[in-house]
Amino acid sequence: MRRVAVVGVGMTKFGNLYDQDVKELTEEAAFNALQDGNVDPKDVQIAYCGNAVPGVVSRQAGITGQIGLMSVGITGIPITTVSNACSSSTCAFREAYFAIATGLYDVGLAMGVEKTVMRKEDATLATLSIGSKFLSLGADGELENIYGISFPGFFANAAQRHMHLYGTTREQMAKVAVKNHHNATMNPYAQFQKEIKVEDVLNSRMVAYPLTVYDCCPLSDGASATILVAEELAKKYTDTPIWVKGTGQASGVYANSEEDLTRFLPTIIASKEAYKQAKIKPKEIDFAEVHDCFTISELIHYEDLGWCKKGEGGKMIDEGTTELGGELPVNPGGGLKARGHPVAATGTAQIAELVWQLRCEAGKRQVDGAQTGLAHTLGGLTHADVAVSAVAILGRD
Amino acid sequence: MRRVAVVGVGMTKFGNLYDQDVKELTEEAAFNALQDGNVDPKDVQIAYCGNAVPGVVSRQAGITGQIGLMSVGITGIPITTVSNACSSSTCAFREAYFAIATGLYDVGLAMGVEKTVMRKEDATLATLSIGSKFLSLGADGELENIYGISFPGFFANAAQRHMHLYGTTREQMAKVAVKNHHNATMNPYAQFQKEIKVEDVLNSRMVAYPLTVYDCCPLSDGASATILVAEELAKKYTDTPIWVKGTGQASGVYANSEEDLTRFLPTIIASKEAYKQAKIKPKEIDFAEVHDCFTISELIHYEDLGWCKKGEGGKMIDEGTTELGGELPVNPGGGLKARGHPVAATGTAQIAELVWQLRCEAGKRQVDGAQTGLAHTLGGLTHADVAVSAVAILGRD
Repeated sequence: MRRVAVVGVGMTKFGNLYDQDVKELTEEAAFNALQDGNVDPKDVQIAYCGNAVPGVVSRQAGITGQIGLMSVGITGIPITTVSNACSSSTCAFREAYFAIATGLYDVGLAMGVEKTVMRKEDATLATLSIGSKFLSLGADGELENIYGISFPGFFANAAQRHMHLYGTTREQMAKVAVKNHHNATMNPYAQFQKEIKVEDVLNSRMVAYPLTVYDCCPLSDGASATILVAEELAKKYTDTPIWVKGTGQASGVYANSEEDLTRFLPTIIASKEAYKQAKIKPKEIDFAEVHDCFTISELIHYEDLGWCKKGEGGKMIDEGTTELGGELPVNPGGGLKARGHPVAATGTAQIAELVWQLRCEAGKRQVDGAQTGLAHTLGGLTHADVAVSAVAILGRD
Repeated sequence: MRRVAVVGVGMTKFGNLYDQDVKELTEEAAFNALQDGNVDPKDVQIAYCGNAVPGVVSRQAGITGQIGLMSVGITGIPITTVSNACSSSTCAFREAYFAIATGLYDVGLAMGVEKTVMRKEDATLATLSIGSKFLSLGADGELENIYGISFPGFFANAAQRHMHLYGTTREQMAKVAVKNHHNATMNPYAQFQKEIKVEDVLNSRMVAYPLTVYDCCPLSDGASATILVAEELAKKYTDTPIWVKGTGQASGVYANSEEDLTRFLPTIIASKEAYKQAKIKPKEIDFAEVHDCFTISELIHYEDLGWCKKGEGGKMIDEGTTELGGELPVNPGGGLKARGHPVAATGTAQIAELVWQLRCEAGKRQVDGAQTGLAHTLGGLTHADVAVSAVAILGRD
């Protein structure tokens, strides 16, 4: 199969974007990526649009990409909606990668878009909290919702078990939020642009013990996009193509012991596949964007992604390894926690951050010597595991 | 890229399946395809599940495949939801084809599932007709719905224009319904198993002039699945592999003249691509399954797919060309009209019918000398065009 490079990336600001609908967000992110990559819309031969929960807040399902991309001049080509909960656009990126790798297409666009925040005039339509309704659709509703499990509840269970087995503390989790908020102050696209302290996290409103509001990422609106091209064309568009080194993806695995609560097998399987394709070891990653939907998640990802031993995620944050300036900076863009989390837009926003870092265009939040970066999302609930994890490794050569 | 073969297909009966949820339908279709192809669930390395409007009737969005396939033993692999309105599972099939063609995966499952019929106990939740709400999400809701356009309205416009420009008659449209109902009487999976007459169509309740209830396909529940494998493995599973000869897909093209109402440009673009890949001319197709969402659609597809001149679709049905026993039988399985239309499940059901026909396993509805077949879906509305069309050509060698 052919090598594939990312030559353009773009995103919208993330946040409560009351005045923009899903179409406008799609247009803005796609336009920014095309402009960034000097790519004419007519050059794009295939497109994938991640959208996690279509039809709940927006009034479209399944053809979001067709509608939004028509306005930027992308029309008459294969456009496919990929929906895989919080991993939707990482999976969209993989599909574009496959399509180009086959040799059938040379230039592809992969993006994600989500409206999770209702417009004020629609708020009276709600009979349920829209956030809960929205997220509950990413679970096995007929099994899990009726027993009362929710996303904060599921990750709170993981946190409690991790604390019990490995001595992880609430302060260690809080440090994840503090780090990611700090990084986001240097990212103009981030939803939250303010520093917080460990005490702010510990003293904020409890959501599901031990997770407070500041341990949880927000639900946001936003879109992000990437342009992928076949090796032969990369130099036509850019002097600094960023290469797809490997990708991996895995679905939920039925978990049958309490210990499994502290690891997400799909991440382990997906990252092993990506490392294998990239022909590198976990610790050869220079920096990463990981799915910090809750602070405990980021600590678990350190372990699942092979950067420390099982149970040592807390130690890793204590030692500053994952801060900017540390040995393996994690979430330099602010993470879901502070950049914001427009569900399906998160994956390609992580990849955009990887590309900016690898091109040395990340300004004040630049990771020194960034040669190889990893993006990781997970999403959905199936039985006692997450439903899907997807990983992409990108590099300068 | 590698050649890819279909070695197993399966489906559920289509219809008003009040007692089966989306998970059970997924399981049943996947199980049938695995069994048909002698494929162990553990052999499946990647899966794609088409689902057009998740979260409206079913209580899941984006992880339907992960949940339903876990029960048949497919777990820990990449599983991705593909959502592209009525073309969802044809597009899922293309993604599986690409993934195997890259060389990264050897065995893939592509399927579609849809619940469109509410369970009786849920009916009180409805504030809108669920069918209208459901389908309206496949349009540019913020633009089109507020001006009152609906799917029957859009296709009725096309029918009126076709009648005006080319003299197409209501009787010619009615003959499409009569033919497809007749074929469905020989298909045990079909929703409707009764013959109808031209007069039944003409005299049934008017939906949007000139289309009566019998000119419209139903909205159904159901699922269908296919197993694809790399060339090297085909003979391990079957003596009669059916080959993917070519595929094509295209999004909506902004239409700016009245004449465009009588053709769907995405079909023309998608089929040209598929014919090119398959290295055949349109008339070398021996039989086809096409997207007869309304009777007029099938006549337009004859023209768009290159089987007759523009405006001669009516003549083609008059001459019996597309009947079983004719020169180019269309919808031997009963079509959307009579097999039923569980939105995202239609594409892989068409491909299942192609495989049964190409293996000479179609019983009383067998097409004589079937060597090459074409499956075609379209879906969604964008501005004055359909949003997506997808085509797959399969053959015995």
